[in-house]
Amino acid sequence: SATAKIIDGKSIAKQIRDEISVEVSRMKDAIGVVPGLAVIIVGDRKDSATYVRNKRKACESVGINSFEVRLPEDSTEQDVVKFISEFNDDSSVHGILVQLPLPSHMNEEKILDAVRIEKDVDGFHPLNIGCLAMRGREPMFVPCTPKGCIELLHRSDISIKGKKAVVIGRSNIVGMPAALLLQNENATVSIVHSRTPNAEELTRQADIVIAAVGVPNMVKGNWIKPGAVVIDVGINPVEDAKSSRGYRLVGDVCYEEVVKVASAITPVPGGVGPMTIAMLLTNTLISAKRAHNFE
Amino acid sequence: SATAKIIDGKSIAKQIRDEISVEVSRMKDAIGVVPGLAVIIVGDRKDSATYVRNKRKACESVGINSFEVRLPEDSTEQDVVKFISEFNDDSSVHGILVQLPLPSHMNEEKILDAVRIEKDVDGFHPLNIGCLAMRGREPMFVPCTPKGCIELLHRSDISIKGKKAVVIGRSNIVGMPAALLLQNENATVSIVHSRTPNAEELTRQADIVIAAVGVPNMVKGNWIKPGAVVIDVGINPVEDAKSSRGYRLVGDVCYEEVVKVASAITPVPGGVGPMTIAMLLTNTLISAKRAHNFE
Ligand SMILES: NC(=O)C1=CN([C@@H]2O[C@H](COP(=O)(O)OP(=O)(O)OC[C@H]3O[C@@H](n4cnc5c(N)ncnc54)[C@H](OP(=O)(O)O)[C@@H]3O)[C@@H](O)[C@H]2O)C=CC1
Ligand SMILES: NC(=O)C1=CN([C@@H]2O[C@H](COP(=O)(O)OP(=O)(O)OC[C@H]3O[C@@H](n4cnc5c(N)ncnc54)[C@H](OP(=O)(O)O)[C@@H]3O)[C@@H](O)[C@H]2O)C=CC1
Repeated sequence: SATAKIIDGKSIAKQIRDEISVEVSRMKDAIGVVPGLAVIIVGDRKDSATYVRNKRKACESVGINSFEVRLPEDSTEQDVVKFISEFNDDSSVHGILVQLPLPSHMNEEKILDAVRIEKDVDGFHPLNIGCLAMRGREPMFVPCTPKGCIELLHRSDISIKGKKAVVIGRSNIVGMPAALLLQNENATVSIVHSRTPNAEELTRQADIVIAAVGVPNMVKGNWIKPGAVVIDVGINPVEDAKSSRGYRLVGDVCYEEVVKVASAITPVPGGVGPMTIAMLLTNTLISAKRAHNFE
Repeated sequence: SATAKIIDGKSIAKQIRDEISVEVSRMKDAIGVVPGLAVIIVGDRKDSATYVRNKRKACESVGINSFEVRLPEDSTEQDVVKFISEFNDDSSVHGILVQLPLPSHMNEEKILDAVRIEKDVDGFHPLNIGCLAMRGREPMFVPCTPKGCIELLHRSDISIKGKKAVVIGRSNIVGMPAALLLQNENATVSIVHSRTPNAEELTRQADIVIAAVGVPNMVKGNWIKPGAVVIDVGINPVEDAKSSRGYRLVGDVCYEEVVKVASAITPVPGGVGPMTIAMLLTNTLISAKRAHNFE
């Protein structure tokens, strides 16, 4: 039986990092500026530490400067905002990232809003989302994970215009902006969420499915129209006695079933995950270029 | 054969204006403040003059102060921005509206962005649209026409949650924000636009249809699922020799056909149109209450 093309996010992300490296060197040679990304991490969640380490390594791999501030769990909002303000004013920093989640005593919204919009490489600021939603406006930055999804489609020569797309999930950081991006590329978009009674039937109509739900293996083979393209954003730990860590990561899509129905699919891990960091580097480069009027 | 319930926008808008009158009086009696709406009109387009006159009359009818500035067609952007700034600083003005379209030599975006977000009763600012799109954020104002559509559904006891909705059109001022509002109320929303190949088939799946296209009579009877609810935003002049003006106004929905299939429908005129102005008054009242911390 037929098997979907595997969209290799790891190798596409590698290719993008190579392109960024070239651009970073070109910029340094031409105007002596090196893009810089600052990351603020509060508390010592293990997963957050891993993400931050991966980001640092990714920066190093392409020649982007990285700055890190680690604050204790019991820091105040003011402490965090103070560091954000310093990075806001620091011309060697072109992107500022606050690692989420923040400790529960902090107002996430207030802290994120302190990041200057010109350095908000996550693209989560409402002004930025507004520009993403409006025709004729250009956002400063496109949020990394949804941007990564679209980039995977582009680099796999999958056309979006005129296609029917279903996005499962409507979160601020993935589902909602992914839907806006697909629509900006002239797909006809439907958004499925937890209150959708007929998710399966709707999804089965789509030429392109982006799943960003957080429910392991939710999207079964019979949810997918034969030949559809499936982008699986989910990263869900499930118990696995055979793994040394005691768990493994699976997507929101039941890969084994869907790979037999779709024409193309992203694996988990190795699909959208590596793209998110690649897009963070892209956004940081874009920001540095914009700050220095470098094309 | 069955006939849809007619959603009487004119009478619902009247009821809303009555409610606003009561609130305006209550506010005046309690704290001596009267809400004020400022309108800036540039040039002498006949239709714009009509809209502005209607807004003034509507303000008068509920006791809201209205201020008007008329500038000649050949004014500069600076002229317009100067008046906006004055209204921004004027504490008796709670809403500022720039009548569109502006003369072609002006940058609409730049001018609209000059309106203080606290007084942007149109709700067109990208920061406002961003908050509308994001979960957990509250927009300052909901844009008037889409807010009017939702209000018509609410006041007709039509439930939205869990329903399948199709919005035809994705403009910044109607279609896109209408889709966001429906989604915020937990409908499952699909957005149809000019690049949608199968608009008819998609629309036929919807329990709720909002048409904001600008194409007279586009939505035919066979586009509509029996029992669906249809909100027609379109206001399109079509030639009519029998009318003394030489034309009449029709919607985007083929009323004669759809009235036989839908369970409820808005007429044109007398549907969404009167609601838009009622929502503008509502937004101005909300703004005045917020400025004076009056509940
Ligand atoms: N690859 C990467 O780099 C990234 C991966 N992720 C992963 O993507 C997934 C989603 O993340 P995120 O968007 O942050 O998650 P959120 O929990 O913020 O949002 C989940 C969304 O899915 C919807 N949903 C939940 N259950 C169902 C259901 N049964 N049927 C239909 N819809 C449902 C929710 O609907 P409602 O709004 O109604 O509650 C919500 O909109 C997670 O697995 C996460 O780990 C996230 C970020 C980056
Ligand atoms: N009742 C009221 O108070 C108001 C009424 N209106 C009326 O509402 C209508 C829409 O206004 P507005 O939103 O400003 O219009 P715009 O012209 O800004 O937007 C029209 C939208 O309809 C889409 N569209 C155009 N043709 C087709 C087609 N054949 N099939 C599917 N989609 C199509 C366009 O798609 P694409 O994006 O691909 O180009 C676009 O998104 C007009 O009749 C207007 O007069 C408007 C404002 C207030």
